[in-house]
This record gives sequence, C-alpha cells and structure tokens, in this order.
Amino acid sequence: MKTVAIKNIQRAPDTEIAAIASRGVATVHEAQGRTGLLKPYMRPIYAGARIAGSAVTILAHPGDNWMIHVALELCRPGDILVVALTADNTDGMFGDLLATSAMARGVRGLVIDAGVRDVRDLTDMGFPVWSRAISAKGTVKATLGSVNVPVVCAGAHIVPGDVIVADDDGVCVVARSDAHSVAAKAAAREQNEETKRGRLEKGELGLDMYDMRGPLRDAGLKYLDSSNDLEA
Amino acid sequence: MKTVAIKNIQRAPDTEIAAIASRGVATVHEAQGRTGLLKPYMRPIYAGARIAGSAVTILAHPGDNWMIHVALELCRPGDILVVALTADNTDGMFGDLLATSAMARGVRGLVIDAGVRDVRDLTDMGFPVWSRAISAKGTVKATLGSVNVPVVCAGAHIVPGDVIVADDDGVCVVARSDAHSVAAKAAAREQNEETKRGRLEKGELGLDMYDMRGPLRDAGLKYLDSSNDLEA
Amino acid sequence: MKTVAIKNIQRAPDTEIAAIASRGVATVHEAQGRTGLLKPYMRPIYAGARIAGSAVTILAHPGDNWMIHVALELCRPGDILVVALTADNTDGMFGDLLATSAMARGVRGLVIDAGVRDVRDLTDMGFPVWSRAISAKGTVKATLGSVNVPVVCAGAHIVPGDVIVADDDGVCVVARSDAHSVAAKAAAREQNEETKRGRLEKGELGLDMYDMRGPLRDAGLKYLDSSNDLEA
Amino acid sequence: MKTVAIKNIQRAPDTEIAAIASRGVATVHEAQGRTGLLKPYMRPIYAGARIAGSAVTILAHPGDNWMIHVALELCRPGDILVVALTADNTDGMFGDLLATSAMARGVRGLVIDAGVRDVRDLTDMGFPVWSRAISAKGTVKATLGSVNVPVVCAGAHIVPGDVIVADDDGVCVVARSDAHSVAAKAAAREQNEETKRGRLEKGELGLDMYDMRGPLRDAGLKYLDSSNDLEA
Amino acid sequence: MKTVAIKNIQRAPDTEIAAIASRGVATVHEAQGRTGLLKPYMRPIYAGARIAGSAVTILAHPGDNWMIHVALELCRPGDILVVALTADNTDGMFGDLLATSAMARGVRGLVIDAGVRDVRDLTDMGFPVWSRAISAKGTVKATLGSVNVPVVCAGAHIVPGDVIVADDDGVCVVARSDAHSVAAKAAAREQNEETKRGRLEKGELGLDMYDMRGPLRDAGLKYLDSSNDLEA
Amino acid sequence: MKTVAIKNIQRAPDTEIAAIASRGVATVHEAQGRTGLLKPYMRPIYAGARIAGSAVTILAHPGDNWMIHVALELCRPGDILVVALTADNTDGMFGDLLATSAMARGVRGLVIDAGVRDVRDLTDMGFPVWSRAISAKGTVKATLGSVNVPVVCAGAHIVPGDVIVADDDGVCVVARSDAHSVAAKAAAREQNEETKRGRLEKGELGLDMYDMRGPLRDAGLKYLDSSNDLEA
Repeated sequence: MKTVAIKNIQRAPDTEIAAIASRGVATVHEAQGRTGLLKPYMRPIYAGARIAGSAVTILAHPGDNWMIHVALELCRPGDILVVALTADNTDGMFGDLLATSAMARGVRGLVIDAGVRDVRDLTDMGFPVWSRAISAKGTVKATLGSVNVPVVCAGAHIVPGDVIVADDDGVCVVARSDAHSVAAKAAAREQNEETKRGRLEKGELGLDMYDMRGPLRDAGLKYLDSSNDLEA
Repeated sequence: MKTVAIKNIQRAPDTEIAAIASRGVATVHEAQGRTGLLKPYMRPIYAGARIAGSAVTILAHPGDNWMIHVALELCRPGDILVVALTADNTDGMFGDLLATSAMARGVRGLVIDAGVRDVRDLTDMGFPVWSRAISAKGTVKATLGSVNVPVVCAGAHIVPGDVIVADDDGVCVVARSDAHSVAAKAAAREQNEETKRGRLEKGELGLDMYDMRGPLRDAGLKYLDSSNDLEA
Repeated sequence: MKTVAIKNIQRAPDTEIAAIASRGVATVHEAQGRTGLLKPYMRPIYAGARIAGSAVTILAHPGDNWMIHVALELCRPGDILVVALTADNTDGMFGDLLATSAMARGVRGLVIDAGVRDVRDLTDMGFPVWSRAISAKGTVKATLGSVNVPVVCAGAHIVPGDVIVADDDGVCVVARSDAHSVAAKAAAREQNEETKRGRLEKGELGLDMYDMRGPLRDAGLKYLDSSNDLEA
Repeated sequence: MKTVAIKNIQRAPDTEIAAIASRGVATVHEAQGRTGLLKPYMRPIYAGARIAGSAVTILAHPGDNWMIHVALELCRPGDILVVALTADNTDGMFGDLLATSAMARGVRGLVIDAGVRDVRDLTDMGFPVWSRAISAKGTVKATLGSVNVPVVCAGAHIVPGDVIVADDDGVCVVARSDAHSVAAKAAAREQNEETKRGRLEKGELGLDMYDMRGPLRDAGLKYLDSSNDLEA
Repeated sequence: MKTVAIKNIQRAPDTEIAAIASRGVATVHEAQGRTGLLKPYMRPIYAGARIAGSAVTILAHPGDNWMIHVALELCRPGDILVVALTADNTDGMFGDLLATSAMARGVRGLVIDAGVRDVRDLTDMGFPVWSRAISAKGTVKATLGSVNVPVVCAGAHIVPGDVIVADDDGVCVVARSDAHSVAAKAAAREQNEETKRGRLEKGELGLDMYDMRGPLRDAGLKYLDSSNDLEA
Repeated sequence: MKTVAIKNIQRAPDTEIAAIASRGVATVHEAQGRTGLLKPYMRPIYAGARIAGSAVTILAHPGDNWMIHVALELCRPGDILVVALTADNTDGMFGDLLATSAMARGVRGLVIDAGVRDVRDLTDMGFPVWSRAISAKGTVKATLGSVNVPVVCAGAHIVPGDVIVADDDGVCVVARSDAHSVAAKAAAREQNEETKRGRLEKGELGLDMYDMRGPLRDAGLKYLDSSNDLEA
C-alpha cells in the first residue's frame, strides 16, 4: 500500500452537493443508473439524518485509527469522512473525541466500513455516522494507511472528492464529474415521481400507469380464477 | 416455476383476524404450538406497529419487483403482501410509490424476504414493513414470478389467505383453517398470563408457580452453597 | 457439563459498581486495557439504557430457558442476568413474564447470547436487555444447565460476581477483583478526555494534541500535494 | 407442533427415483422450472456422492436428535432422511452410530439443516450427508418433534415421500407426483445439452447458438471498440 | 491487556495426551460432559489429520502476528499453538515460514481464530491447521499481545497447558487437570460404542437398544398410520 | 449502469503473467504492498489449481448470466473471466456448458462473486473456478449488464486487462501497469524466503532472524517465569 496523505483534492461545487442532498439516496441511486450504492449493511446510528458532502477517503488497518487523525487536518467544511478497511473489521475506530474534532472542522458526517462507539454521545451531538457495526472496542495507532487515495468502501469504489449522499436508506457515491448531471436527473425523477404518487393515491394501478399488462401477457403470465384451476 | 397469478383466494373472517392481531406474535406463536414463526432476521422498519391480515403471496426473483405490481391489483382491504424470493437477496424491491398504491387499496403492510427502501417516507406514511434488509438498491421488471401460490418466506411455509400477524417481535403465520381456534387459544393464554404476571409481580418465583422444584431435582440439578463445593 | 446451581457468590461493593456504571462501556473497556468486551452483535433492545451490576451467570441449552427460572431465585437486587448458550441460538428465551419476575427481585437487566421476545412490553417496563437477536420463538424446559459457573458469553469469559456494564455501545465485563482499580482508572480517563474535548472543540488537531507528527514521519508517511504527485 | 410420527407414506416408483438420480441436481432443478432447490449452505461432507431417494422427514429441536431414532424405524431401503429444525442450529445431531443404523436399514443418505459429526467415519463408511455444518457438539433426547410431516428444510418445502436428489451441487426436492414428468424432462434436457456441448466444444459461441445477438441489441447493448469510446 | 509472555507452563503427561488423541474430538467432547468444543466454524485446512497436544496460547490483534514469533520460542515438542484474537478477523496470520519454524520445534499443529495462508504448502508439509478462514492477507508486527495467558478462542476458554484435540470434526479443549479422567471416560465410551455399533449393524433399532419407547410414549408421541389420520 | 461491451482491452505481456502465476497469491499480494486481495470468501471449487491471466470483467445482475455469453466472444486465450454482481447473490451463474465454451476459447478460469454449478464436471474438465458459493440455482437472461468496465469484485477494484492470480489461498489482482515490477518483486521475495526457510528449518527463531527482541522489549513486552508472577 502507498502510505501517503494527499493534501489537496478537487471537490464538486456546493450547489451540486446541496442538490444531491435534497434528493436522497434512493433517488440519486436511480438517477445515475442504479450504481454507486454501498452494501446495505451500512446503517445509520440514528434515524432521520440526510447529508451529502465531498469524500475525504481513508484506508486503514483493522483496529487502527491513526489515519483518521491525519485525515481530519485535510478536511474542509462540508466534507464527509469515508473510512475503508484493508480487511473486514468491526472495531470502534471513531468516538466522541474524534467527532468533536470533526465537527470543529465542519465535517458533516462519517461513513465507515468498521465500527463506531460513543453512539449515544454522537447522537446527542448530532454527528451522523453510517457504519458496519457499533462497538466499544478500542483501537491502536501503530500502522500507516493512506488518506485521499481511491478506496473500496463497503463494496463501492470511491475516489477522493466524489460526492457522498447518505440517509436512512443507506449510502451512495456519485463521481465528482457526474455530480451536475446526476443532480439534474434526480430532480427530474423526483418531479416525475410526484405525479405518479398522485395518480397512485387515487387508486390507479401501477399495472396501468406503467402499461405493464401487455408486456406481462407477452412474457407469459397466466391469470387463473382460483388455485383449483392450477391443478387442472 | 408456474408463472401464474391466482385472482381469488379464500380469507379468514375479519373478526378472527382482528382477534389474532390483538394478541401479538409471541402469544399467537405459542398458542398454535410454537409453529409458524418466520426467521428472526425479519425486522420491522419502525417500532410499535402491530398488524394482522390475509396473506397475498408473491414469489419474485432477486432484484425484480414486477410481480408486486401484479399482486396489488388482487389485494383487498385488510390484506398483507408477503414477498418470497427465489434466492437470498437484499435489493430494495419496495418503496414509497408502491406503498402509496398499497395504502390506496387498503393493504395493511408488507412482509418481504428481501430489502425495502424509502424507509423514512414509509415511516411517515405509517405503512409498516418487516424485511430482511433496508437497501436503496433499485430493481428491474424483467422476469415473471407468481402471485398467490404457496411460498416459503423467511423459512415459513405460507399459503395465500393464511393469516399473517406481525409486531416488534417478528412475523408469524397462522393457517387460515386454524385462525378460529388459534385466536381462541391465544385469548385463553393471555388471560392465563395475566394471572401469572400478578403473582410474579408480588415476588412469587416461577420455580414455585410452575412447580419446577421436583422436576429439577429429578433431572439431577445439584444446589451447592458456593463454588468451593464444586471443587470438592 | 456440571448441572449445578451455586447459591452464593461474591459481589463487588455497590459503590464500585455505581462508579463503573457512571463511566459507560467504552471508557471502562479502555480503562482496563481494552479487555472484557462482548462481541458487537450484542445489541440493546432499546436505546438509552446504561446499567452496571453483578453477574449471575447461566449456561443454557438452545431453546431451553429452564435455568433462568433457577437463577432468578439466586439473584439479589442489583444483579444482572448473564445467559450463555452451549451453541449458537436465537430463540426467544426471555419475555415479559420473566422480566416481571426479575424486576420484582431487583434485577437490573439481562445480557443474553440468544434471543428475547415481548420487546415492546420490556421497553414499556423499562427492563433493559442486550441480546443477539429478537425472536418470538418459544422455548422448552427440558434439559439442565448450570447457574453461577464461569461461562463464555458472546466471546467474553465471565465469572459469577464479575461486574457487567452495558449501554448503547454494548456490554463489557470487569473482573470483580479489578472493579476498584478499573473504576478509578475510568474516572481518571474521563477527566482526561474532558480536557481533550475542550481543546478539540476549539479546533486543535489530534495530530498536535497527541504529538503524532513525529511518529507519523518516522513511520514513513509521505504527504503529497495532489494525486498527480502520486503518479510521478 | 403436532408431536406425531406418521408410519406410512407414499413413495415414488424406484424407476423414477433412479432416473432422477442419474440426472443430478442442476439438471433436475432446471427440468422442473427452477424450483425445489435447498439453500446453497447445504454442502456434502465428501465430494463425489450422488443419490436420490424418498424423503422421510423429521422436525427436530436444536440440539435434540430424539426424533431421528423414531424416524429410522419408519424408513425403508432407498429412503433419505431429511431433518428440519425449529430454529437455526449447527449441533452435530448425527454421527457414526446413527449412520450404522441407517445403513443397516437401507437408508441412502442424510440431508440435515444442522450439523453432523464423525465425518471421517461417515466418509469411510460411504454414507453421504448434506448438512449446514460439521460439529462434534453432542445432543440430548428430551423434547418431541415430528416424523413424516411436511417441513421447511433449508428454505424448501418438503412433503414426506417427495423425491430428494443430492450431489456436489447441493440438494433438490421433487414433488412425488411430479417425479415421472420431471424425470422425463430432465432426460430430454440432458440430451439437448449434449448436442450443445459438442457445438460449444468446436468453438461456436452461445451468442450464436442461442440466437442472442438480436435480443441483446433490442435490449440496448452497445458494443464499443475501446474504453476510450466510453469517455467520448 | 497484560502484554506479557509467560515462559513456563504446566503440561499434561504425554500418555494422557496420546490417549486423548486416540479418541478424537466427538468422543472426548462427550466424555467430558459435552463441554470444551470450539465453534464449528473452525475447520481443518486438509482432511484426515488428528492431533492432541498442550496449548501454548496467544492473544493477538487483528492483522498482527508478532506474538506468534514470541510464542514459538516458548513451545516444546508436542505443543499446539492456539491463537485467539481481540476482535473477529480473517487475515492470514500464519504461513509456510512460520510452519517451518514450528515444525523445527516439534509443534504439532495450529488452532487459530483467524486466517491462514500457504495452505497448499502446509498441506504438503503435513502441518495441520484449524482456522476460521483461509486468506493470503499479510500481517504486520506492530502491536503487543500476550503469550500463555488464558484466552477465549472460537468461543472456548483455554488455559495454557490445557490439552487440545483436533480432527475432521473440529477442535475441543480438555482442562489439564481433567486430562486423566477424560481419557479414561473416553476409552470407556468408545468401548461401549463398539458394542452398540455391532448391534445396530445387525439391524437392532436405537429405539430398542436405548429403551426409548416408553419415554417417547410418556412424553406424548402419537403414532399415526398415515397423514389421513392427522386430518381426522 | 452503462450497458456496454468493450471489445478491445490492453493486456499485460504473457511473460509477466507467467511470472506472476509462478509465485502464487500470497507472495504476489505481499510483493505489491499487501493490496489487491479479494475477500477470503472466494474459494476454489477444487484444490491445487494455480492460474494467472488477464481479466475480462463482467458486471451482472443477481441470477442473470446473459453478459457472460457476451464476454466469451471478447475473450482471448489466456484470459480469466471476472464476474462482479450488482448485489450479493449466490445463484449458479456458470456451469459445464459455459465452461466448455470458455475452454474452447482458451479461457484459463473463472472468478465469480456469486455461485457456480456442475462442480463435479468442472473438476473433471480441469476448469478452475473461485466463487462465493456452489449452487445449482439456474439463471435467466433478461437484463443487460456490462463487459470490460471497471468493477468491484469481492471487495477488490478490477480494471479490464489487470492480471488476476488465483490459487488455494484465494484471488489477487495486479494492476496491468504494475505487472512487470510486481513480478520482479515477487521473485526477489521468494528467493529471500527460500533463505529464511533454510534457517528456520535448522531451528533458528524468527525472533533472532528478524531481530525482534529489541523492538519487543522497546514496545514493553514483559517475560515472566510463570503465571504466578502475573499475580505478583
């Protein structure tokens, strides 16, 4: 592994990041062609948070949070810490002290493919975290990793400066260069969904609204009056 | 697989379903001889919901929610959608649009051996879901499954029209033909538990209330004053 | 297995237990040299509880809660039930009736390497539980286990009378003979953290506060201005 | 649970069972429309066995193998023991003594959604087992289950007398009434595959042999000369 | 954690260890009252090995094999290395070089609650390993652990000098002070099983050999002629 | 997702690939700084195979193997198929017919983050596969994916044309541009290990050979004569 810390990364414009935040994970994931989603084991420590920001990436060893300290110096307001691990691990690599430091620097939240601790304090502080586990297990500061190199975090390839969006549905990454177009597509998608929601509320069926009856018939779906007809 | 949709199924009477709902999962599961429970990985997306209803069953492919649209047309008020998968999968096959449509048709909730998304919206809408996972992962509409055939969902065999009961403890299925007797047994059981609760509150021990001292002695339990006697 | 129930165990003084409770799991775990933590799959059934107490241990068979009844008679106010299993299991071995009995005897909570049920009732009663699973699956009373023998529960070795501390971060065990010194170290640690928190809040970096810059350089960390320098 | 043992079950004819055995799991699963497969965590204890036989079903409690003894009396030569559990469990419920008894009665093998032990002996004896786990963990004989009732084993619904086929690819169940037609379809499928295999060996592409080029184009697949064109 | 290496431990006599090795894991586990078994995820890297020896214990950090080097100096011929981890981990902490060193010192094998690598070489060398995983993931030598302190390895409490027995069924630990009596009980058990095996081979049923018919009837087992009687 | 198939990719020279194959996964992984390893759940279907080749990458949907057919046309002799999934899945997406086609085109093996079937046939054919699961579960051909785009497979980022090396220890990826230097470093490492092996065989300790005694002392390791000194 290259044990480096890259000091400067390019970030997407704030307006694009704000636009992505306003749409949420499910819509953004759809808007960019169903890509970029982190594995569903990444869960928020409390319900209701929705953030987007620029990824400051960390590649760390199991049970060693040294590089998170290195990364914090390189964060700017609006960033999100993204911690990837060299091997599956649930240790509590981040707690209330690191969160205090992160908030002082304007960091919006943490996405970590490992554990987090002091979750009651983090909840009280309003510092959102998406993690693989909650664990009080302490960590050492003994082995170098990297900061701001491309990482695979919870199954997703994330490049420093990519836009991270996270809410109760999970975490999604948008390539920095796609942020503008994805924000636009997400907005369009949401408007379109608004219309559909209205029709469905009135009782219209998806079968009709999406014109599925023909394709279902063509695919061979058989409607039977009852299970008696099945045996026949 | 038979790619069919059965239009008409038999349902248990509303009064029986209401009686089962009022007892909850743990009591109903006990009342029918400790059977019918779905695996404990099936968890509610929010706490506090308790529902019962008639199962409209769906057998779907991983990442493909086409058959849920087919099923919604066949639902009646009071039904519960039960989605089984042909292989383990966590994709978010159900979100706020499908929930809007389901609520418009009087569906009481969803039990899905896969993922669900838009969980904040679903919580705000008060549409309860028990699922294997929460995931924003979108789905396709490409391959037929079945509606209203018997399925295995999270380890339980469920026949269309069976009664589903779900709460914070999980999900349980009651065979339609057993609904009446199970409701009665559950009521009896709950009354019996009420009496026991009162005695235990006053400090009576389960050892005495259940007359366990004799059976424990017969089974060979030895009481020792302290761990020193263990070594002796 | 020795099928015994040890009636008398030694407990740590109440003041030490109270001191440990006031520090919480993460601090106590650090204070005793990062040992004693139970596996992170042990999760509370509701958020916000923090307890400490003396362990009354139970070794039980999957799906058999007989020994919990035996243990309750041997509990004193301030105790915590600790249930270990002879094999991995998620059955709901504890519910509202047992909780009623436990509360009547002054038991502070339950730590169980299996399942628990009636979680809505337990939450309403304010009886905290840390468990591997939530499951309505009922249990039998057929096979003897042991009460108050040393057990391995969720990966931690627990001796009867050890101090258990549990909160939103998980569960930790402190050897009875270490309770005094661990409580003191935890208090010292928390005071020390308070100071650090203040400095971090003002924007000081962990890199500086912990004097990490030298060790990082010695370990070989390279700072690069941008990823372009990486390729060079 | 109904604690019963059904003495007589209907079985498929030997010729049908032999025909199914000769085709193997993957072909049979396809031949019956991709249904009936047990979850892939069911693995053989040694490679190379392929068997088919009539299911004698057992529903047992975790860590309790009492009902296997009951079932053995009801087995006939050519049967396969199918053990389902009331909750997930890996205990070693079956070992060399039970295998000796089973072989003496002509039982062809064991499918168990739990653990097995004495695997070296079972391998030497040539008694094939498909299980969830290998574990030396001993079991009790304390709680009744059922023999020859319908069960859900490793995610599949199995009725006594159904045909079980198992090999290195896993385990599949064929409904007794479908055995004849499935055997025929499997034979046809295998013949068809033989022809295909010859064409593929000569270098013909599946794209051509299955006429996929048109459908792929219609579905929107774009061929690009190089990844440079992707950026364009 | 106490970062110590204990140089001298007490071991069981060679004859007792040899006696335990000759019985194997399943018999020894039964002989000592169904205790001492490690979790079934501990699997051998190749089939057919059966060893017993004195435990030299190691407590190590995820991804750090420093303490294994420390332990090797303290091993004597006939010992078995037992590696416990402070958190779940699958890194390949042991490979062919360490195995070469271990064999040079007469170590009989390795039991590791983490990963192992170079498994083809280890197999060729005939150095048996029971592990949680196979992984080529390399490790660092940065953080101290302990050697020859009591550990919890794969769910079992192991004290240095305890007897470890391992074969195709898994791994079991026998307390050093129990080695003599367990060896004797295991021998008796095996003799008893030999007799039973002969009777079962001749077709006698376990139901009769173990006199189960009465207890089954007393417990309430109902025999029915066919499933028709079930409905009745 | 971009539903494209890239026809031409750049590959590393055959000599570099052969050099990498000759070193094996553990050595290559170390030689490139402990990076590139796929998760350890990727296991070979049979022991003893060791291959290296150029990655032809596939991004597929759960249960849909359509894109494997597309990829085969784009393979050249010496390639290795690498199948990544859009969501966790164990379906048997590859069997003996696809293997026949792959071998006819000179493909050296398959790395698939899903299931494989016909494993007995594949073993007989000598077509090596590293997979997440073995499953007879059949697949559809309904939804487009991509061929020869960068993918995340079992936690590793793989670009088309990267060098894949796989053996009994697992699977590792080497960036195409690093192949030359990694091959050289791996050769040097292996030579170095050969020398070490000789010294260790003669009984020299790693403690001495690696000069660890000083660093261990500096880190604070305490040697004690016996556990009695621990209490002191």
